[in-house]
Amino acid sequence: MINEGDNVLIWNPKKGDTVLLTVKKGATVGTHFGQIYHDEILAHDWGEGVITPKGDIFYITKPTLADYTRRIKRQTQIVFPKEAGFIIQHLNFFPGARIVECGTGSGSLLTAFAHFIGDTGQIYTYDRREEFSKIAQKNATKWGVNNRITFHVQDIENGFIERNVDAVFLDVPNPYDYIGHAYDALAPGCRLGILVPTTNQISQTLLAMEKYNFIDVMVVELMLRYLKTDPYRIRPQDIMIGHTGYLIFGAKTVPLKDGITPQEVIQDGE
Amino acid sequence: MINEGDNVLIWNPKKGDTVLLTVKKGATVGTHFGQIYHDEILAHDWGEGVITPKGDIFYITKPTLADYTRRIKRQTQIVFPKEAGFIIQHLNFFPGARIVECGTGSGSLLTAFAHFIGDTGQIYTYDRREEFSKIAQKNATKWGVNNRITFHVQDIENGFIERNVDAVFLDVPNPYDYIGHAYDALAPGCRLGILVPTTNQISQTLLAMEKYNFIDVMVVELMLRYLKTDPYRIRPQDIMIGHTGYLIFGAKTVPLKDGITPQEVIQDGE
Amino acid sequence: MINEGDNVLIWNPKKGDTVLLTVKKGATVGTHFGQIYHDEILAHDWGEGVITPKGDIFYITKPTLADYTRRIKRQTQIVFPKEAGFIIQHLNFFPGARIVECGTGSGSLLTAFAHFIGDTGQIYTYDRREEFSKIAQKNATKWGVNNRITFHVQDIENGFIERNVDAVFLDVPNPYDYIGHAYDALAPGCRLGILVPTTNQISQTLLAMEKYNFIDVMVVELMLRYLKTDPYRIRPQDIMIGHTGYLIFGAKTVPLKDGITPQEVIQDGE
Amino acid sequence: MINEGDNVLIWNPKKGDTVLLTVKKGATVGTHFGQIYHDEILAHDWGEGVITPKGDIFYITKPTLADYTRRIKRQTQIVFPKEAGFIIQHLNFFPGARIVECGTGSGSLLTAFAHFIGDTGQIYTYDRREEFSKIAQKNATKWGVNNRITFHVQDIENGFIERNVDAVFLDVPNPYDYIGHAYDALAPGCRLGILVPTTNQISQTLLAMEKYNFIDVMVVELMLRYLKTDPYRIRPQDIMIGHTGYLIFGAKTVPLKDGITPQEVIQDGE
Repeated sequence: MINEGDNVLIWNPKKGDTVLLTVKKGATVGTHFGQIYHDEILAHDWGEGVITPKGDIFYITKPTLADYTRRIKRQTQIVFPKEAGFIIQHLNFFPGARIVECGTGSGSLLTAFAHFIGDTGQIYTYDRREEFSKIAQKNATKWGVNNRITFHVQDIENGFIERNVDAVFLDVPNPYDYIGHAYDALAPGCRLGILVPTTNQISQTLLAMEKYNFIDVMVVELMLRYLKTDPYRIRPQDIMIGHTGYLIFGAKTVPLKDGITPQEVIQDGE
Repeated sequence: MINEGDNVLIWNPKKGDTVLLTVKKGATVGTHFGQIYHDEILAHDWGEGVITPKGDIFYITKPTLADYTRRIKRQTQIVFPKEAGFIIQHLNFFPGARIVECGTGSGSLLTAFAHFIGDTGQIYTYDRREEFSKIAQKNATKWGVNNRITFHVQDIENGFIERNVDAVFLDVPNPYDYIGHAYDALAPGCRLGILVPTTNQISQTLLAMEKYNFIDVMVVELMLRYLKTDPYRIRPQDIMIGHTGYLIFGAKTVPLKDGITPQEVIQDGE
Repeated sequence: MINEGDNVLIWNPKKGDTVLLTVKKGATVGTHFGQIYHDEILAHDWGEGVITPKGDIFYITKPTLADYTRRIKRQTQIVFPKEAGFIIQHLNFFPGARIVECGTGSGSLLTAFAHFIGDTGQIYTYDRREEFSKIAQKNATKWGVNNRITFHVQDIENGFIERNVDAVFLDVPNPYDYIGHAYDALAPGCRLGILVPTTNQISQTLLAMEKYNFIDVMVVELMLRYLKTDPYRIRPQDIMIGHTGYLIFGAKTVPLKDGITPQEVIQDGE
Repeated sequence: MINEGDNVLIWNPKKGDTVLLTVKKGATVGTHFGQIYHDEILAHDWGEGVITPKGDIFYITKPTLADYTRRIKRQTQIVFPKEAGFIIQHLNFFPGARIVECGTGSGSLLTAFAHFIGDTGQIYTYDRREEFSKIAQKNATKWGVNNRITFHVQDIENGFIERNVDAVFLDVPNPYDYIGHAYDALAPGCRLGILVPTTNQISQTLLAMEKYNFIDVMVVELMLRYLKTDPYRIRPQDIMIGHTGYLIFGAKTVPLKDGITPQEVIQDGE
């Protein structure tokens, strides 16, 4: 049964268009395929088709996390589901995890993170711009994960408040300036993840991570191709997203006992 | 503190090699960088470096889900973290979800799925080959998610047992033969996901999904490039994985009331 | 010195826009960056900047083949410089070569082919649509390679006229129907090249090539990424062409003497 | 007819292996599929199959330029047919062109260049390492294009000897140090092309090109995917080349008359 407040994704067979909406008694919404009355949606069930007064049709499906986060209007750096899914597996994300993230932005990545840490986990997100924090709270609330997020409206120049967190993720223009802060917040042996759009930023970030002895460092790029869905003419779509960003990962280590440096050990061992 | 039974990922700075092991008192393991004594690991903490008797060094980090699932030895179709992360966002995965999956294989994808549905969720996995079911159980147990999985050792020719599940995922050579069974198991409005390696299989699968009125169908391919990590020589690695598979997604609909077909509605509306 | 009739590529520093034109005394052309008087171009030399009456500036460069063929307006299947360059190296193209091509289309690929076979080579191009043949002749003439091309305005249903050519290239919707005709036109041991946009066409084409005993068959796809040119922010452009087509190549063989089949030999040899 | 001295590409149907050889009376060559007697090749014709004494079979095809240049053994930076084909279309290559290239390397790219400029064109190639010059001469001779090449065994620190050439191509570790020399050698309005493997080199090269007022600058990367050739199982191959290099192109301009700078004009025009 569909209830008031449910998020639904409606799909129109003629154009393949979709619209995501939160159902509200008496409301209407204009779409490419005509006016939609929310009461009609409430009178139907999941998976059903609704015939509009104009004789058009649309189907009611459950929106997935990807449907939702892709539709969040962004004024900031874009992180797509392909990156989000890669991040949560390469950092220590799990139901119950405690994660630090900066910046909050429009809350697209944040919502994806909060989705997978469950009600016992917590995301601590930072952004100095209050307007973004508000947008992100609204977006997270609509997806029902607001209770899993602590919103800090503050600069991270002086570091993060949390300690011993399971993972830190940075999506800021100058991550190389905050590697030390990420180090302080992280539990030893845990992972830092970073998104940067340019290769110049990769260079600077790698140098900063080296300084703080992050290990098992990797840099990756994900490319996504949509294919056309005509079974008799299988082929990639003509246009694709050429670039979103590069992902960098590394694990925090602590200094060796007795003040030895790894370099000394390695040279002795050779 | 590191306890017996913990999974640890050890990393050697000289070669960048990593080894994943489950700590056990008194055990030893041979690696590219010498013999490792588990008791040494137990005498250290997360993030610390251990100096071996031979004067070598290794660091102890927490393995991520990606570290773990990538290392599962496979006798079957490969699904990588890039695909796994995309799937869990494009199907209705969340802590508490009920998911049907086939085939079980070595349990790599299964473990990733179980990781993100939490202790209140359940994966129902099918494979007719008992030896795979056993391997997968072992792999899931080692990652601590075995309690979230129901293992069915049976063919799916006669369909799935479960009904009204939040998502179905098929990774079998002939998914087009089981679209009807997936339809029966799925809750209306929810999503079916499929992995196939060839474009011929895409064609056949799309035809079968059309027959069962799946909507909002998409087909994608993900490409992953690793970059080298020398900050002064940023560039992609020389060799990359050229292909793992294509992902297909669609949402289940139910027939229109009064026995009208969507085609009739669309034609009337034009 | 720039002469009347020369093709020039003009480039505007403000927008990075380029315009390709054939210089003609007294002519003018409107561009995004203002009116351009051809006489101004004739009064300057290659590489020079021209200051317009409005106080704008543009530079005069020699157009490359890629500049030219990319700008040919197409009503047909697109073949890009990345494919053209791959084709001419994987078929037997060289100054002096005799090549059969179908279809002519707007002459983009044709012009590229004719460019590299020199004045002693000849391209025999087929298209049943006279309007395309005329457009292609105009385009080839403008680039100065018209003398190297024989235009056949005819269907290839009954085959090609030429025999013993150095290479055949097919860019038609149903190449699998003409593999026999390509075989007849080709010199033994020489190569057939084919462009198709869909994987379904690859399957059909491979089956037809197998029937005619083409060997050393390969199928490839080329992807091109443009990068941004800000030295401080190196990164791929946001949007890229996702797909143009697949290229298929194979070499013509002749039947074994004494009516033996290759299969018989292979089995005996095992 | 096959003559002594011809290059032939032989192909074995069992393994799909190919061998490229120059035919010589009485010679033999060992291959994965048995001993091959050159006299057997001379007794057959192009496209024919040869049955070996051991009852195996191989076919005789004409090697393409791509077959040849791909097989040149390299001790240096790799340039593949995909890059070579792109370069010759984006620089002013044509039968009769005069081109400067550095470094010579093993002559793979050089041979491809010489192939397409015909007997009236000339490549001036530079390398300070005499051993490479010799290898490259041997490789170019075997392909029959040695007469089109001038080999300079010298450093380019003091510049190129030639002036007013149609194109310059640099494939050296530090191209940014030689942009001025390329500028001096090029005819105004003509193109410089550069290959670099890392993004750090792109940054440095773009800065140097800006200093010398190169315009219409572009940076691209080409990716090539081979597909499997089973018509019933169309899919990309499992492994692909992840990276060869980035290509940079730009056109030479000359200073504005009257000592005005472009910046002054642009500001006035705004």
